[in-house]
Amino acid sequence: MNGARALIQTLVDAGVNVCFANPGTSEMHFVAALDDCPEMRGVLALFEGVATGAADGYARMAGRPAAVLLHLGPGLGNGLANLHNARRAGTPIVTIVGDHATYHKRFDAPLESDIESIARGVSSWFRASRTSRDVAGDAADAVAAALGPPGRIATLVLPADVSWSEGAALAAPRPPPAALAVPDAVIADIAAVLRSGEPAVLFLGGRALREPGLVAAARITAATGAAMIAQTFPARLERGAGLPAIDRLPYFAEHAAARLAPYRHVILVDAAEPVSFFAYPGKPSQLVAAGSTVHRLAGGPEDVTAALAALADRLDATRSPPLAPARRPQLPTGALTVEAVAHAVGALLPERAIVTDEANTSGQGMPSATAGAPRHDWLTVPGGSIGDGVPLALGAAIACPDRKVVCLEADGSAMYTPQALWTIAREQLDVTTIVFHNAAYAILRIELSRTGAGAGGPRAREMFSLSRPSLDFVALSRSMGMSAGRATTADELVAELRRAFAEPGPHLIEAVVPPPA
Amino acid sequence: MNGARALIQTLVDAGVNVCFANPGTSEMHFVAALDDCPEMRGVLALFEGVATGAADGYARMAGRPAAVLLHLGPGLGNGLANLHNARRAGTPIVTIVGDHATYHKRFDAPLESDIESIARGVSSWFRASRTSRDVAGDAADAVAAALGPPGRIATLVLPADVSWSEGAALAAPRPPPAALAVPDAVIADIAAVLRSGEPAVLFLGGRALREPGLVAAARITAATGAAMIAQTFPARLERGAGLPAIDRLPYFAEHAAARLAPYRHVILVDAAEPVSFFAYPGKPSQLVAAGSTVHRLAGGPEDVTAALAALADRLDATRSPPLAPARRPQLPTGALTVEAVAHAVGALLPERAIVTDEANTSGQGMPSATAGAPRHDWLTVPGGSIGDGVPLALGAAIACPDRKVVCLEADGSAMYTPQALWTIAREQLDVTTIVFHNAAYAILRIELSRTGAGAGGPRAREMFSLSRPSLDFVALSRSMGMSAGRATTADELVAELRRAFAEPGPHLIEAVVPPPA
Repeated sequence: MNGARALIQTLVDAGVNVCFANPGTSEMHFVAALDDCPEMRGVLALFEGVATGAADGYARMAGRPAAVLLHLGPGLGNGLANLHNARRAGTPIVTIVGDHATYHKRFDAPLESDIESIARGVSSWFRASRTSRDVAGDAADAVAAALGPPGRIATLVLPADVSWSEGAALAAPRPPPAALAVPDAVIADIAAVLRSGEPAVLFLGGRALREPGLVAAARITAATGAAMIAQTFPARLERGAGLPAIDRLPYFAEHAAARLAPYRHVILVDAAEPVSFFAYPGKPSQLVAAGSTVHRLAGGPEDVTAALAALADRLDATRSPPLAPARRPQLPTGALTVEAVAHAVGALLPERAIVTDEANTSGQGMPSATAGAPRHDWLTVPGGSIGDGVPLALGAAIACPDRKVVCLEADGSAMYTPQALWTIAREQLDVTTIVFHNAAYAILRIELSRTGAGAGGPRAREMFSLSRPSLDFVALSRSMGMSAGRATTADELVAELRRAFAEPGPHLIEAVVPPPA
Repeated sequence: MNGARALIQTLVDAGVNVCFANPGTSEMHFVAALDDCPEMRGVLALFEGVATGAADGYARMAGRPAAVLLHLGPGLGNGLANLHNARRAGTPIVTIVGDHATYHKRFDAPLESDIESIARGVSSWFRASRTSRDVAGDAADAVAAALGPPGRIATLVLPADVSWSEGAALAAPRPPPAALAVPDAVIADIAAVLRSGEPAVLFLGGRALREPGLVAAARITAATGAAMIAQTFPARLERGAGLPAIDRLPYFAEHAAARLAPYRHVILVDAAEPVSFFAYPGKPSQLVAAGSTVHRLAGGPEDVTAALAALADRLDATRSPPLAPARRPQLPTGALTVEAVAHAVGALLPERAIVTDEANTSGQGMPSATAGAPRHDWLTVPGGSIGDGVPLALGAAIACPDRKVVCLEADGSAMYTPQALWTIAREQLDVTTIVFHNAAYAILRIELSRTGAGAGGPRAREMFSLSRPSLDFVALSRSMGMSAGRATTADELVAELRRAFAEPGPHLIEAVVPPPA
């Protein structure tokens, strides 16, 4: 058996049976081996950032990693931004970077580059396979490393001769590192804080935003009077009617600081201490008030959900917490504003939908408009690098073929990885993409003055304008084989959404909205 | 004066007056300062790979660097593949990576990443500015470093607070490192080889492929009977009627080895020893025959053109060399094949055109069909990372607004950086893009069997097929504001090309061609 075949079968045996791929010549034996291992589903992407973002979306929903197949250092570079997002999301991914044959590297052929230095920043685990005899073991180690809590990126370099050489054998799956228990003393200390009567807030991120964690946290708040707030950009937030309701921390630093100001204690649960996304002249980076104390319940390699449950038990927090009531906004009519889009989505969101949210400024009304919709998952971009929204939707749809995926996408962000539409069309995935077309990098218009750079002259403002020439997302979508429609009124949007939600399969809606004032 | 303004004015004073930009919040003061420095032209790209590829194309034609403005580590990642190509091309680029404020970095905000580790592989020079007082000097150093022969990538990290803080002052341009003279002894040794009567070939790359180098090399070959061959993927080859004709080394290793086999001596002139692009099982990586000797005339930091001239003088090579005669193919008619496209381009290529060539398998007939066309420049992708062709055309058109740019682009490659079309339309650049639509990663179909991976089963073949769904490059182009037409016959292509070449401005032609057999 050659290395490629052993690698793929070992991945499958370890539960990795989807590979988002953008292969090149050095990956030909890997590609050929797909026909020998029918359990591995190869999904072709036309750009590497689509593949890595899709792997992120897949694993957030499937709970197990996908593989990504990339072509040498430059291919890894193209995929790096969405690996950055996946790292921040705590997503497990097995990244396989095809490389020149081991003996070919010293000749410095055109595509030779330092893969490790590119990979290092996003990878918790990195290894270059040396021989076909090693590669299956390396793959098993990579999967286990990726599954180490909370979820990590494992990068395996696959030289072409390791792929094509015989002498490989399968490797059995390795047990991933188990989550660590949070010490009793930590739980006791935080229970004491919560019993003190001083104002406290649970700041929840990562795994704490899944139903078990949320329910435990909500029990704690019901028992103690503490508040709970979610990270601004969660990897996966389970929400909607019948689940505990939670607000996300606002994006803008002064709003976030104001939201946290009442609390004497901020208790971190699978979240780093909240800091401003960017620095602004004369404003503090830290969002927690100066006199407040930050505590850490759990995170990183620890069992976050168990820690929340143990804390709830310690507090005798047995009372059922309040849950979000079923409640939908009225269907909008008239002019198409971002609020109207939010109301339409809130009114029509299908049961068990998966929402991927890269709507940026256009998405501000979404959380409240959808708070009482049927339960759903909300995926955002924790690393802040745009171009992840449509790829996330692609991956989530592969992971959950029985669920409707709704992608909320800003026009500027959509243009980073438009090729994702092609793969969604190719795989006939059940994804409805709404592109908010306000013809601007609207966030930058806002940030220009917020950073103290003034109102901007005409040449600066040109750097934020997407109106010259105008983008046509309907034509863009159709150019890649995906049906699409345009909405310029709320009524048109409702009609488009009804159609898209009634029928499975890919569809894109260009929502023409005004830019923020 | 704040750091941003000092930085931009210093770049301008050093001759860098174009900035291809994809900015974010941390770059807002840089963007605002564009209105204070009208000599700096900001060109907006919707994706960072467009910006870096455009900077590559710009500098190859302008002979001086452009700046690129990128947003933190992920933005650099998105631009990395085309920086890799630029590095291999020996292109000077000043890459400015906006970063968090210096004091904000320790908070590990979502977009925090290790910029240096991402940049290291492509950058000959790297520095992070520490204060607004340093930044202008850093910029002057960066330009000088970029201009060090043959041309290098200088990466300057620009923290937001360095940008916005006052206290900056301009810095005068620094002299770049001068090209080194090749020692007389080297020239004498190589002259002796060429006088020996043993079969020899000059293997020319980089700067040797510009007119002065080519003319000197052609004089040498005329005087000595030596041959000359160009690199497979030159950064910029000056060619056409009235210039010395030169063939490029074939891409496939066995063809390349056969082409070099007759020569007892291979003399490298601004080129590395030729090696196969990829490794293939059982085939050697080195293309020079085992018994042959490789000599090195000049390259890297040396004055390549002067070395060729000195060698020609040493050989008393005063005879005018043969030059390519003016000769165009007949206009094709009938079925649209890749040969027909080549003939149409050869028949109609405008005087002083700039051709950017990422046509891959579809471009094989182009060199001979255009050998006698009016003189023109031919730009390829020396680093082998696809997604560079349209960005190169964009940059070349900014550099040379009085020349027609013709972009020969494969369908698969076009889909890596399709956003380049938008900037070409926005800037109303005189670029005619021909997309060869054969609905396949045709090179991979060929490489699958060449690497010994067999014919490929149905699942492997799906990884090379771009036909499901079909891409529509006319719709794609129009979605980004660029006029476009489709040619399915040679006659339609000729009509489209005549129109595009007659009128200045952007136009795309989708040439529907059969895939290679």
